[in-house]
Amino acid sequence: MNQQRSMLDAVLDTIVRVRHRGNVPNTGSIEDDCADLLRLGADAGKRVAKSILARYAALSDDEKVIFFRFLADSLDIDPQNLADLADAYDEERSPTNLKLLQAAGEPQRQELLRRINAVPGVTNDIVTMREDLLRFAREEPDLKRVDLDFAHLFASWFNRGFLELQRISWDSSASVLAKIIAYEAVHEINGWSDLRSRIQPSDRRCYAFFHPAMPGEPLVFTELALVRGVPKSVQDVLDEEREEQSAEEADTAVFYSISNCQKGLHGVSFGNLLIKQVVADLGRELPNLKVFVTLSPLPGFGKWLEQDDQLEAEPEAIINQAAHYLVEQKDDRGRPVDPVARFHLANGAQVHAIHAKADISPNGEQQSKGVMVNYLYDLDQVEANQETFASNGHVETSKAVRALVTTYKKTLI
Amino acid sequence: MNQQRSMLDAVLDTIVRVRHRGNVPNTGSIEDDCADLLRLGADAGKRVAKSILARYAALSDDEKVIFFRFLADSLDIDPQNLADLADAYDEERSPTNLKLLQAAGEPQRQELLRRINAVPGVTNDIVTMREDLLRFAREEPDLKRVDLDFAHLFASWFNRGFLELQRISWDSSASVLAKIIAYEAVHEINGWSDLRSRIQPSDRRCYAFFHPAMPGEPLVFTELALVRGVPKSVQDVLDEEREEQSAEEADTAVFYSISNCQKGLHGVSFGNLLIKQVVADLGRELPNLKVFVTLSPLPGFGKWLEQDDQLEAEPEAIINQAAHYLVEQKDDRGRPVDPVARFHLANGAQVHAIHAKADISPNGEQQSKGVMVNYLYDLDQVEANQETFASNGHVETSKAVRALVTTYKKTLI
Amino acid sequence: MNQQRSMLDAVLDTIVRVRHRGNVPNTGSIEDDCADLLRLGADAGKRVAKSILARYAALSDDEKVIFFRFLADSLDIDPQNLADLADAYDEERSPTNLKLLQAAGEPQRQELLRRINAVPGVTNDIVTMREDLLRFAREEPDLKRVDLDFAHLFASWFNRGFLELQRISWDSSASVLAKIIAYEAVHEINGWSDLRSRIQPSDRRCYAFFHPAMPGEPLVFTELALVRGVPKSVQDVLDEEREEQSAEEADTAVFYSISNCQKGLHGVSFGNLLIKQVVADLGRELPNLKVFVTLSPLPGFGKWLEQDDQLEAEPEAIINQAAHYLVEQKDDRGRPVDPVARFHLANGAQVHAIHAKADISPNGEQQSKGVMVNYLYDLDQVEANQETFASNGHVETSKAVRALVTTYKKTLI
Amino acid sequence: MNQQRSMLDAVLDTIVRVRHRGNVPNTGSIEDDCADLLRLGADAGKRVAKSILARYAALSDDEKVIFFRFLADSLDIDPQNLADLADAYDEERSPTNLKLLQAAGEPQRQELLRRINAVPGVTNDIVTMREDLLRFAREEPDLKRVDLDFAHLFASWFNRGFLELQRISWDSSASVLAKIIAYEAVHEINGWSDLRSRIQPSDRRCYAFFHPAMPGEPLVFTELALVRGVPKSVQDVLDEEREEQSAEEADTAVFYSISNCQKGLHGVSFGNLLIKQVVADLGRELPNLKVFVTLSPLPGFGKWLEQDDQLEAEPEAIINQAAHYLVEQKDDRGRPVDPVARFHLANGAQVHAIHAKADISPNGEQQSKGVMVNYLYDLDQVEANQETFASNGHVETSKAVRALVTTYKKTLI
Repeated sequence: MNQQRSMLDAVLDTIVRVRHRGNVPNTGSIEDDCADLLRLGADAGKRVAKSILARYAALSDDEKVIFFRFLADSLDIDPQNLADLADAYDEERSPTNLKLLQAAGEPQRQELLRRINAVPGVTNDIVTMREDLLRFAREEPDLKRVDLDFAHLFASWFNRGFLELQRISWDSSASVLAKIIAYEAVHEINGWSDLRSRIQPSDRRCYAFFHPAMPGEPLVFTELALVRGVPKSVQDVLDEEREEQSAEEADTAVFYSISNCQKGLHGVSFGNLLIKQVVADLGRELPNLKVFVTLSPLPGFGKWLEQDDQLEAEPEAIINQAAHYLVEQKDDRGRPVDPVARFHLANGAQVHAIHAKADISPNGEQQSKGVMVNYLYDLDQVEANQETFASNGHVETSKAVRALVTTYKKTLI
Repeated sequence: MNQQRSMLDAVLDTIVRVRHRGNVPNTGSIEDDCADLLRLGADAGKRVAKSILARYAALSDDEKVIFFRFLADSLDIDPQNLADLADAYDEERSPTNLKLLQAAGEPQRQELLRRINAVPGVTNDIVTMREDLLRFAREEPDLKRVDLDFAHLFASWFNRGFLELQRISWDSSASVLAKIIAYEAVHEINGWSDLRSRIQPSDRRCYAFFHPAMPGEPLVFTELALVRGVPKSVQDVLDEEREEQSAEEADTAVFYSISNCQKGLHGVSFGNLLIKQVVADLGRELPNLKVFVTLSPLPGFGKWLEQDDQLEAEPEAIINQAAHYLVEQKDDRGRPVDPVARFHLANGAQVHAIHAKADISPNGEQQSKGVMVNYLYDLDQVEANQETFASNGHVETSKAVRALVTTYKKTLI
Repeated sequence: MNQQRSMLDAVLDTIVRVRHRGNVPNTGSIEDDCADLLRLGADAGKRVAKSILARYAALSDDEKVIFFRFLADSLDIDPQNLADLADAYDEERSPTNLKLLQAAGEPQRQELLRRINAVPGVTNDIVTMREDLLRFAREEPDLKRVDLDFAHLFASWFNRGFLELQRISWDSSASVLAKIIAYEAVHEINGWSDLRSRIQPSDRRCYAFFHPAMPGEPLVFTELALVRGVPKSVQDVLDEEREEQSAEEADTAVFYSISNCQKGLHGVSFGNLLIKQVVADLGRELPNLKVFVTLSPLPGFGKWLEQDDQLEAEPEAIINQAAHYLVEQKDDRGRPVDPVARFHLANGAQVHAIHAKADISPNGEQQSKGVMVNYLYDLDQVEANQETFASNGHVETSKAVRALVTTYKKTLI
Repeated sequence: MNQQRSMLDAVLDTIVRVRHRGNVPNTGSIEDDCADLLRLGADAGKRVAKSILARYAALSDDEKVIFFRFLADSLDIDPQNLADLADAYDEERSPTNLKLLQAAGEPQRQELLRRINAVPGVTNDIVTMREDLLRFAREEPDLKRVDLDFAHLFASWFNRGFLELQRISWDSSASVLAKIIAYEAVHEINGWSDLRSRIQPSDRRCYAFFHPAMPGEPLVFTELALVRGVPKSVQDVLDEEREEQSAEEADTAVFYSISNCQKGLHGVSFGNLLIKQVVADLGRELPNLKVFVTLSPLPGFGKWLEQDDQLEAEPEAIINQAAHYLVEQKDDRGRPVDPVARFHLANGAQVHAIHAKADISPNGEQQSKGVMVNYLYDLDQVEANQETFASNGHVETSKAVRALVTTYKKTLI
């Protein structure tokens, strides 16, 4: 299909180029184009939609901010009109009234983005546009009004039902692998040789989600080690001296890294689904795998010790303290304060084990005080855990971890 | 991916089944499930989402209507609240206010459908659900309020940028071909042998759009003949006695049939894009093809003659009258009254030629008085035509067709 | 690749056509072409190779026979020369002498066929050529000398290591399925609807071997039913009224049909490998499958009864007699006389069960007296069985079948 | 298919392992295995065939030589027997006699190799086995007798009709690209970044032949530059500072490197076919390409100057001398002495241009005195050239090159 798309694109590009080269001066602005596209509709406006993207790509940062302000202000909801239509619908709940109301309740910029996205192959450009927007919105929070529309559309476009799981291996295309190297956010990949050591051995796996409208662009990926027994440190997992073993001999799969790839898809979460789908697939492919755990940092632990003026526990007792932090420290919505814990617990995992001296890298020492956590994904439990956690924030733990919490409490007495 | 999906599904199905078989009586209703799904979110609610679809599939028509009424009334917008939030946003245009406003401006049923669609592989079920809804809404127009949300979501999910063009040939899968046989709406296909005669010869083509979330389900397809010279009747095109020629020798491609496949996607139009993409691709694959035309009915002609008490022209003059009808008869929005004409003209085509005795089937005689029309797709003109038509409804024609209109006018004097 | 091939072919075809249309009269014969190709080599002779195939396709049967006689006589081994070179090699076993000897030991027609096959995409034509040859050789056995070379080359070209197993399903291409309908040799397929009932239900499977040089051309295929318990008759298996069950619930896979597709590949056997590969793959895909059996005719039984003036046993005793025939009746090489038995036993299966009234079709009654046999494929035993059978013709049986043989012996006393 | 193969393999491996672990001591030798395989046949002998490969892989070089001597001597032709059978066939040319004769005319090791190759996925191992053999045969020429059989089988197995052309791009798999880096023989590739610069830009191409039985293993590949005008030096072509241009703007394709990948396929030439197929395909994909040339070294030129005590020409006259060497210097079979020239001329190319200072690398200066040659591939001429060259060794040249030769002759007077 990409070929067909590019053929049509080539035709359209030629048309655009010819016009722009023609004697009619290209005097319009990107804002004019936006007005044209809203007037013409997605199909008749395809040329204009491409022009908007081309113009956008040529803007400076300052000009982009002006453009986003235009989207924020000129293509906004008209609240007066909306209020009137809401009243009308309140009076008579007719389809016609609802149609008018819904149209008025959606900023025009949302339809604009939808029409731009009707051009085949440009979804990635729109994702990149939002990446810019998020950057600007940190300085100018009012632009978040525009981001609401990007986020709303992306929730539909990147609906999980549309995602495709692919295994990333040494047989994957170099163009995808180059992106994996670039996007790895947890344990940096140092070039092709390091990458190869993570995806080619029989006891290593990597999986990513892709979206059909962004071929060759991983959205999120996770790296796994297949091992015997639950590992107690990331050093064990990444040990290059280890003896490679066959996948069939492993009994445990360890997710030791998960990375989002697209800044422009911030807030559209895929990682949770990725882990569970990999658990389901791997469990079927390799029936010998009985245990699926993560090996995760406890990134808020260091800060908590510091902020709350906690006395850092003695080395031999630090896992008790970490267990207490992880299980008992809640935010004002009653959920664990640790963000990684929140992610996995909301995802249906339980706290399986806590290890000291498990990540002795400077970063690991600083953020997590060297502590790492195994979150267990048991597909028989994951739905129930997830519903319980969503309902009341209960932290599901193994007996061993509960014992750590109890021990910690005793030390406080 | 289907395999992976089905694996995860299998796991989830087992969970569902196990629970339902368990000692907790499954007393809830589909409405309870909807409330649960809105409470739990897409991920934690996946089991519930599947339960909704399973329950829906088991409903009778009467029960379905009750369910749609529930969506219409209980999961509607709260207009009072919306009006208040609109006022608040009018006062202070903050992101927070806008977020609240937009949430309130969208009926809850829309988010409900989005969460159901998060289950991999169920998009087709939701399309079928809408097919039911459209049927019920003919009797009970108030249900159109629910359809607004289906239509709104489908516009994002089936955004044209996500569609994939595929050639349908004798090498296509039997499961797809069986659907082509079933869905052909213009010139019925009588079994596998007839189908083969339309897709296997070197001077015949068929193309369809697919969506990645509905693999194996054509959305719309078109059938073409590759010929020498623009054909004057559908009998010529479908003549089984014709001598098959190589695609390389043809100079003209004739679109003689285009069929939508999914009733549930009513109003989400793809046919226009399909024709133009096929023109672009075929023109590149077979540079010898110089002319791309349709061979289309004029389905409103018969009715117009009847309704307007027009005197049907003498056989030799009927194409003049047809030209007049096609070019000059406009609706109150200034567009041609003939629906097929509107479709192709809005799509950027021009009226190229008009033929009498071109479809001598009973249906052709009755609806179109035997007349057929060639609409010409010239990619160099199509954008300009489209913009012009969108702006002012101007009907672009060939000289020959203009001459017919002129002749007709003279006969009136 | 087909595309690339066809491009090159198109170029070559044009060249050929241009020459043939040119002013040099195309006066040569197919025999001249053969001489040219042997002189020019495969690469320089590609045009000539295509010419040979084109000329061959235009020959009448009588002319084809003349052509094969030419291959037999003019492109034969020179035995005098060969004897001399054998003596020379006997005297001095040098590489040079061996090279000359081997060249002389191979009829020139073998190299000719190899050079024709260097044209991409023509392997199928050469297979068809042999199909002709086998037909002529029935009348004119001397042509079998030519067939020795076809068979020798095919053994290399169709080396099992090159074969590809594909599942045939309702998602397979119509062009392949049309061939499955045409080639089914055991239980005729009556059109597309019957075909669908054999490949689409979840408890039905079909697999075929393909060769990379003959894409879309099945070489051999087998049809399976997934059932609970070993079936006792083909009527049970093909019962259209049966309740379809999920593949996961079956415990037994029954091979009820296996058909060779290419007459021109006679003697190049694939069926044995096909069954074992399907057993290995299915056993892995569906671990619930514990038993893999065939449901096979006993096609020599009827004839044996007749020829040997055996008294046909009473209905209740016929399976004893059939067991005796199957297990005890040997040919002069010490192997079972029944050809189907020989096939499966040589392939490593064992005789598992024998059923009366198991195929009540006229053909089944006549050839097999209604008897059918389950041959069991137990991958843990198949290698050992195969080696034993290859060594001494021992017929491996289940206890139950051995009991039948014993019972039969007692009746003779 | 690979999956299916590996499943079957897994089963077989288990069987082998279980037996070898069993209490029967594994006392046999690789020679015993060979005897067993010849006795059992390909199918029953699959386990043994795998054992042979496993044993071979564990042999030291000295032991491998002993094994190849065993193949040479114990599995050789029996020339006495062959001579007798040749006499018998001379007397009576019956199929039976021919069959016996042909069987006797083929060393048993040939059938042995064929049976080993019946194991799916081992062709690559057999190719590697021959790579060893070729190495040993340099020391011990008598082993060339064994190589004759490898070469003979490979000619059938790697028949050109079975080859698949694939474009190598940045979207190709990393595993294939790593091999391209390793195998490049003409202009070394310095890591992934250098590779990327040769395959990702729009004016660069790379193509390779693959064989279906060796997936992921390129057999031969060629690198091209798409340029405007025929380039005069390799420096121009490889200039990293050049402005990348679109493929559509180029008028000339330059083959600047061609590398064989498999030492074990020595003598089974693919490179000639590769160039012509790429010319045919590219010419169709990019109709703007009018000229297809190589940029080739003249590797025998330096040596010729030296050996023949030729006086090296003055810089300004060196291309005249090179033209003379290339066109006029023939070996005793009447063909050009330069090996690269022989390759391209036998392949149907003509000598298009000769350039001085065209490869200023040390290697280029030493072997070719800095001279490079453009060989022109004109598909309209290539067949005729090829036939002529095969017939009489005539060197087809452009006028410009003929002029250089004439100028050179004058300087000699």
